[in-house]
Amino acid sequence: MVNEDVLKRTKQWRGYVEAKLGFRNHWYPAFFADEVKEGEPVKTKLLGENLLLNRIDGQVFAIKDQCLHRGVPLSKKLECYTKDTITCWYHAWTYQWKDGLLCDIMTDPSSQMIGKHKLKTYKVEEAKGLVFIFMGDIDPPPLSHDVAPNFLDDDMVIRGIKTEVNSNWRMGVENGFDSTHVFIHKDSPMMPENKTVVPLGFSPNRGEENEMVTVVKGEDGPTGVFDNIGAHSRPILEGTIKGEPVVHSVMGGDKRIALQISIWLPGTLKVDPFPDPSLIQFEWYVPRDETSHWYFRTLGRRVENAAEETAYDKEFHEHWKPLSLHGFNDDDIWAREAMQTFYEDDWGWVKEQLFEADSNIVAWRKLASEMNRGIQKKENL
Amino acid sequence: MVNEDVLKRTKQWRGYVEAKLGFRNHWYPAFFADEVKEGEPVKTKLLGENLLLNRIDGQVFAIKDQCLHRGVPLSKKLECYTKDTITCWYHAWTYQWKDGLLCDIMTDPSSQMIGKHKLKTYKVEEAKGLVFIFMGDIDPPPLSHDVAPNFLDDDMVIRGIKTEVNSNWRMGVENGFDSTHVFIHKDSPMMPENKTVVPLGFSPNRGEENEMVTVVKGEDGPTGVFDNIGAHSRPILEGTIKGEPVVHSVMGGDKRIALQISIWLPGTLKVDPFPDPSLIQFEWYVPRDETSHWYFRTLGRRVENAAEETAYDKEFHEHWKPLSLHGFNDDDIWAREAMQTFYEDDWGWVKEQLFEADSNIVAWRKLASEMNRGIQKKENL
Amino acid sequence: MVNEDVLKRTKQWRGYVEAKLGFRNHWYPAFFADEVKEGEPVKTKLLGENLLLNRIDGQVFAIKDQCLHRGVPLSKKLECYTKDTITCWYHAWTYQWKDGLLCDIMTDPSSQMIGKHKLKTYKVEEAKGLVFIFMGDIDPPPLSHDVAPNFLDDDMVIRGIKTEVNSNWRMGVENGFDSTHVFIHKDSPMMPENKTVVPLGFSPNRGEENEMVTVVKGEDGPTGVFDNIGAHSRPILEGTIKGEPVVHSVMGGDKRIALQISIWLPGTLKVDPFPDPSLIQFEWYVPRDETSHWYFRTLGRRVENAAEETAYDKEFHEHWKPLSLHGFNDDDIWAREAMQTFYEDDWGWVKEQLFEADSNIVAWRKLASEMNRGIQKKENL
Repeated sequence: MVNEDVLKRTKQWRGYVEAKLGFRNHWYPAFFADEVKEGEPVKTKLLGENLLLNRIDGQVFAIKDQCLHRGVPLSKKLECYTKDTITCWYHAWTYQWKDGLLCDIMTDPSSQMIGKHKLKTYKVEEAKGLVFIFMGDIDPPPLSHDVAPNFLDDDMVIRGIKTEVNSNWRMGVENGFDSTHVFIHKDSPMMPENKTVVPLGFSPNRGEENEMVTVVKGEDGPTGVFDNIGAHSRPILEGTIKGEPVVHSVMGGDKRIALQISIWLPGTLKVDPFPDPSLIQFEWYVPRDETSHWYFRTLGRRVENAAEETAYDKEFHEHWKPLSLHGFNDDDIWAREAMQTFYEDDWGWVKEQLFEADSNIVAWRKLASEMNRGIQKKENL
Repeated sequence: MVNEDVLKRTKQWRGYVEAKLGFRNHWYPAFFADEVKEGEPVKTKLLGENLLLNRIDGQVFAIKDQCLHRGVPLSKKLECYTKDTITCWYHAWTYQWKDGLLCDIMTDPSSQMIGKHKLKTYKVEEAKGLVFIFMGDIDPPPLSHDVAPNFLDDDMVIRGIKTEVNSNWRMGVENGFDSTHVFIHKDSPMMPENKTVVPLGFSPNRGEENEMVTVVKGEDGPTGVFDNIGAHSRPILEGTIKGEPVVHSVMGGDKRIALQISIWLPGTLKVDPFPDPSLIQFEWYVPRDETSHWYFRTLGRRVENAAEETAYDKEFHEHWKPLSLHGFNDDDIWAREAMQTFYEDDWGWVKEQLFEADSNIVAWRKLASEMNRGIQKKENL
Repeated sequence: MVNEDVLKRTKQWRGYVEAKLGFRNHWYPAFFADEVKEGEPVKTKLLGENLLLNRIDGQVFAIKDQCLHRGVPLSKKLECYTKDTITCWYHAWTYQWKDGLLCDIMTDPSSQMIGKHKLKTYKVEEAKGLVFIFMGDIDPPPLSHDVAPNFLDDDMVIRGIKTEVNSNWRMGVENGFDSTHVFIHKDSPMMPENKTVVPLGFSPNRGEENEMVTVVKGEDGPTGVFDNIGAHSRPILEGTIKGEPVVHSVMGGDKRIALQISIWLPGTLKVDPFPDPSLIQFEWYVPRDETSHWYFRTLGRRVENAAEETAYDKEFHEHWKPLSLHGFNDDDIWAREAMQTFYEDDWGWVKEQLFEADSNIVAWRKLASEMNRGIQKKENL
């Protein structure tokens, strides 16, 4: 799957380079909760696997979207004759959503196969309006180990959108966590309208290399990297070529944002606060297949009661979603897609030339290689 | 061409799994006779080979659609200056339809190549309004060895249609011969309109496993498998999940159809009678390339004279073609295409899980592996 | 890249068969001069490499269109803040057009990378209204060694067009230099309108095989092959099948053209005169990638002063471009594309069957295999 010569030449983060289809045995968001409606199965692809989800009496279940018999997708023609089961449209093999058990074969009710085989099922948890799937085989650790700090806080309310992006998931992570990619956002309408400023880049203080990141190896929580470049660098507000200034940050105002940026296994970003002092941005870059990922961009707001949540919901849809999720982050999408060609045959991991400001990306690659719970392989599909 | 690891794990029907491009040295239908008009060459692809057919003084000839010189398709720009020849548009190499002989090179009439080389030709036979091609190198056996019984009967009149389907040809054969795939047809308008009934499935009688099929190894006729499940099973008219009935056959009436179903090398189905007691359905699943096949669906009617044939022709086009070939069999097309992904990398042949009612498919795979006259390979193209 | 079994079986011109992406260390035309405007970078692909060209103070520079840092195409979003530099849109790495030097990184102006790395640059020469690029690593020989004789003559004025063709570049060369491919042009309106005649083919005189070509191994000039078939053959004006005439050349008039045809490394054709006694046709078939090439078709006219050049410019656009470049040579495009399938997996080089009139193509293949300055490989990309 991944070129062996490349793996030999990227030993510092071999596991990360291998994980073209993502890390196995982690929790990933698959849908927003309101996309999975009672009794209306929906399909998706995660880490190369085809899944089918359904909500039954309020609870979400997930099964592999592939009949055991002849391998056809159940989703090709959905046939659910009872609330708890799904029947393959081809030969009427019928499975229970809760455990995948082949409970009936309507074309031959006396078949010895009945009751003896199970379709693969996936553990599901809902949290903060997102449906998470555990993509793996082991007993799942708590969801809290696979999301960024504060995401699950009781008073945190989450709203967001999901987009399919045509690049490998690692282009997503590295674009999001990349300190100096801010350069692509210099013309975003978010800064002037929201009275804030985003620098053009960061000049890391020399001699403070060891303080640029803080690595967290979660024992009772998530594993990730804090990017400390903000505290150990000079923000660049004026870009110069051969000493002459040629481009400037838009000085929208004095709201301070993006004070703390961190990335967490299996690939979720936290920017705190962003795009406003009252908000935290949480993002996921979920492997879809080798060349595409699901981009979940969400904004969290702390609320004290239902009325505040309702108000935030309106504010999110009318204001923050168009202004920042689209107005700021849409540029990240084409940037990731522009990186894809170079890394597609794996040689980009060898030929790239990182610079000082990429130290947080280096820390993430090493940590991810060391601490992931497994690597998704073609054999798992 | 086919994954070697898969071949090692499918020894019971290795030859069948190998035959991704079909079986060599067999007769296949290529066109309906009226598609090949006097002096109007038409091209097609069979078993991965590009062919060009022409009708001359009523007789059909077939040649390889690839000039010997630089390999271009003759069909790219047809140039036929005499009735008996075709000239390559590029350098005017000119071939005889009847034997492929390079009889002239108009750009250099003194070339030593002339008269010494031959383009590959294919044996052709017309029968029952179909043009059959022998795809192979050996002396062809009679066409009667490669069609289902009764197809060539003197009083049999055939009408039908041809469709290109995006699945390997074996998905076509197995869909057609598959006893319990009838489940997909449960909503077809053919049954109520034609006052018949098709069950939802078949529950094979236990202890009668050895009587489920009759294998015919033709010495002076075709080789194939009769599916006897109808006589050794309980037809399922009511589908149940956990004991509760959830779906029923449409009881259109008491016309009895599909009493005898059989499959014949190199891949042709007979359903007798179908879709009416007065008709027999003959189908072919002809390999086009690794991922597509030609689906010939035809209906045969016994007639006593020309007036009856004329009446049948009208009845076929106005009634049976829309009601059954489309109204019933169109569902088979998407079912086959839905199987393709699972088998495309060959691993489906290992990962599938067959059940009792598939015994006729198992018998077919074994017979086809044993009795085919050769396997089409890339080298043959 | 190229099938090893094929290379073993094509030893007479192995280097040529290997050169699927073209010959390295040669000059190739990339654009017409007026396509590269002052301060408006344009991208192209040559021999599989992505390039970006810009004109600065009248001089054209060429760089690799791929940032050193994360490999993205600079052309995805052009940002040129000073006349002499281009800045990557992603992290503001800034390069000098003239030598590729990484002269600034605007996101981190104190980076140690600055001034220590260079983007690949390409030597550029303009001649006769064409922009030539040296695709290689060695000190370039003069441009005059890589163009056909007379192309650079002081009094020669060139006009032409550029087309992307979907075939390997060698299908382009061999179509252009091929003596008997004239058969495809038999219906061109150029001959009757321009009062000339083009034969249907050439019957080489037997016993004069050794005089069919003249090979030139340039020491102080280009290396190529003259096709002498015109002087050593009988032109075919009437095509016959089994002795009967079936097709004739259009006898447009007695203007004599195409008296001398020659092909030159790295793949440029000269037809002298063509399509008129007053013109010479110069063509290039420039590798773009493995399955496409740039077809430059140009016509040269000798002029004595600027007024004559202006008159020729008008005559070219109004008359020769529609009548001959399109009216005659457009047929060559589909002919090359029709050859592509047969050669795409390399086996065409083994399976083809050349004939007597192809002796000039054989001479070209051998010469090109012997005298090229290198073979473009995937590693060079």
